[in-house]
Amino acid sequence: MSTEQFAAVDVIATKRDNETLSDAQIDWVIDAYTRGAVAEEQMSALYMAILLNGMSRSEIARWTAAMIASGERMDFSGLSRPTADKHSTGGVGDKITLPLAPLVATFGVAVPQLSGRGLGHTGGTLDKLEAIPGWRAALSNAEMMAQLEDVGAVICQAGSGLAPADRKLYALRDVTGTVESIPLIASSIMSKKIAEGTGALVLDVKVGSGAFMKDLEDARELARTMVELGTDAGVRTVALLTDMATPLGLTAGNALEVRESVEVLDGGGPPDVVELTLALAREMLAAAGQPDVDPAAALQDGRAMDTWRRMIAAQGGDPDAALPVAQHTEQVLAPADGVLAGLDALAVGVAAWRLGAGRARKEDAVQAGAGVELHAKPGAVVRAGEPLLTLHTDTPERFARAQEALEGAVTILPEGDRAAVGPIVLDRVSA
Amino acid sequence: MSTEQFAAVDVIATKRDNETLSDAQIDWVIDAYTRGAVAEEQMSALYMAILLNGMSRSEIARWTAAMIASGERMDFSGLSRPTADKHSTGGVGDKITLPLAPLVATFGVAVPQLSGRGLGHTGGTLDKLEAIPGWRAALSNAEMMAQLEDVGAVICQAGSGLAPADRKLYALRDVTGTVESIPLIASSIMSKKIAEGTGALVLDVKVGSGAFMKDLEDARELARTMVELGTDAGVRTVALLTDMATPLGLTAGNALEVRESVEVLDGGGPPDVVELTLALAREMLAAAGQPDVDPAAALQDGRAMDTWRRMIAAQGGDPDAALPVAQHTEQVLAPADGVLAGLDALAVGVAAWRLGAGRARKEDAVQAGAGVELHAKPGAVVRAGEPLLTLHTDTPERFARAQEALEGAVTILPEGDRAAVGPIVLDRVSA
Repeated sequence: MSTEQFAAVDVIATKRDNETLSDAQIDWVIDAYTRGAVAEEQMSALYMAILLNGMSRSEIARWTAAMIASGERMDFSGLSRPTADKHSTGGVGDKITLPLAPLVATFGVAVPQLSGRGLGHTGGTLDKLEAIPGWRAALSNAEMMAQLEDVGAVICQAGSGLAPADRKLYALRDVTGTVESIPLIASSIMSKKIAEGTGALVLDVKVGSGAFMKDLEDARELARTMVELGTDAGVRTVALLTDMATPLGLTAGNALEVRESVEVLDGGGPPDVVELTLALAREMLAAAGQPDVDPAAALQDGRAMDTWRRMIAAQGGDPDAALPVAQHTEQVLAPADGVLAGLDALAVGVAAWRLGAGRARKEDAVQAGAGVELHAKPGAVVRAGEPLLTLHTDTPERFARAQEALEGAVTILPEGDRAAVGPIVLDRVSA
Repeated sequence: MSTEQFAAVDVIATKRDNETLSDAQIDWVIDAYTRGAVAEEQMSALYMAILLNGMSRSEIARWTAAMIASGERMDFSGLSRPTADKHSTGGVGDKITLPLAPLVATFGVAVPQLSGRGLGHTGGTLDKLEAIPGWRAALSNAEMMAQLEDVGAVICQAGSGLAPADRKLYALRDVTGTVESIPLIASSIMSKKIAEGTGALVLDVKVGSGAFMKDLEDARELARTMVELGTDAGVRTVALLTDMATPLGLTAGNALEVRESVEVLDGGGPPDVVELTLALAREMLAAAGQPDVDPAAALQDGRAMDTWRRMIAAQGGDPDAALPVAQHTEQVLAPADGVLAGLDALAVGVAAWRLGAGRARKEDAVQAGAGVELHAKPGAVVRAGEPLLTLHTDTPERFARAQEALEGAVTILPEGDRAAVGPIVLDRVSA
């Protein structure tokens, strides 16, 4: 073993024995891993020890700082506008960034949404916007700054220079069963968001079958951890815990979700999408120093739509172009009369993914038109044989596996029973 | 991720979530890891989860069986003699295999001691015997069988075909801080010993500063786990828990320990070495069906020495050759008058290693003459300025770091105080 490999064993043994990692140990191990001096198998043993033994608040803060120090930091202080950013932990049908960024920018706040592509059953914001003819995700730093100053909202691809340690670590966690650790999730998200240099950050922590966090207590702990990290780093940070038991809105799929987002910007759209967009907009505006403005009005009077059109056009997209439509559809019918009590988010997410809306491997392409359209949401009365869902795909051989994913996803109760339909925002966590 | 990588994540998640691994999961993961289909970083995450969450008796048994199945098994059933083997978990000055193997063979029992080289502060049996001019560690299977039939005792290098999964896994554990897991230690040792095909096995589980197990309870659990594994596999297995707070005998180093072993075979030698050799010999003889013979007599009347000479000569060694002597010596003096109450085994082991008796990396050579010689054992009355230790090396620049290792290793109490000097055999564990 090299001297550095011996040092890595010491760090692993410290956490294995449930002791606290020192600042020097954390700084060294992240730096040495990024340089390749700590081996993948050493980092994965350390990660399993962290998953099982946890990290203290100060360890998580130092870990996050070390990840930030592994790369470059962005700086929005030259902008004339304050900045606010939103991050969602990912859900099914979560298109909120699309109406939210232009809506908040309408009030003079710069919204730099550095986003990613989807992997697995949760869609990626860039995949959705790429359904718009001509739109491009990759911007130079100068282009991004100019668009923030001019339009106010940018949704673009995150550069590779932010927290490069995180990219390497995330790939490792994925294959070693160490994704499910709150300290590791929190430091992964927050290292990128803090490095990005936003002044305010609103976190949308999803809870339920379609989300990473299946129960409210875990989600609350993740939210609290991230709010602490952001606050300690000087970012005004707030988190909303929001429901992901059932898909958000009436669509899951790339072009389908763009269409629904445009409906919201046009003053319509599904009530849950509107409600969540406004709740997050109010938090971002308040954190950016504008607690008293009314974002709902900007959805009704066309101001948010104007900003959307300018944002899309600035990145080469045609906001008036027809969106791609899948070549084949198939319906899922209600199996009985009654009240729709549940429509499982994970099942719908997996079905949309299998229809071609998502990818199994990073290098796969997605279908712009594929996805699932809902004709009823929990709480609605349905009749046997009525369409509940429409499945969309360019490759009809995928219908069977999508239908398989949906087995057991629909719960219908006798009419007269009350379906437990709760609010979309479950809780709020602030510093 | 490949399908097999996905399957590996499932196995990791099972143990991470503190559930029981199925037989199929264990068989698959060991086989797939040996084939290279499960990555090093996946196995190290699984190992950390095993270390922190443990394994049940049936999981350990299956794990061990899967490791055995990864390679070949030896078969001594063609021999006219019964077989008995000894395994020590490793200590400082532990040369017991050298007098023990010929002693037990003297009574018609075949003793196939497949041994290794040392790494770190515990010496390797092969390194010790290689101090004898001409002696060679590598034998073919046919040579080993012929020598077992003819002489009865063989101490040679273990072939690479026995439990190959274990070699790969051991190297991984070493760099990932997952050596210290009783299920993993037990399955590593027992997979090789069961694959070796011995009929009886006596385990010498060391306890104390110079041993892997620092306290009696851990050592007892390790012993119990190994005895269960051996018994379940049809090997008559017994374990002795023996003291390793202070070095065994009066020497730690290769040629120094050969010399001391020959003294024991000649009817002399330090009392603790004689006592432990006889205790282990009695267990091996009883397990091999000879409970009533008197091994002590064979040390006194030259029979064990005859077997030793034939064993060394059969492997090309000259039992009459002068042993190598280090070119430089330096003494450590008693710092005060009093009773020697403690002489720390780990410190002496590290000093011997630094003097050149051991190696830091597999590819390093060892010095045959290097090591530490003790002039007093705990319980003895010492005078300030008298020599306590003599350090031996061919490379005198190493004296300083050896002296450093010995700082604080010596405890001297006022004369009249009683030093706590206990028995060498602390406990016995049988099925």
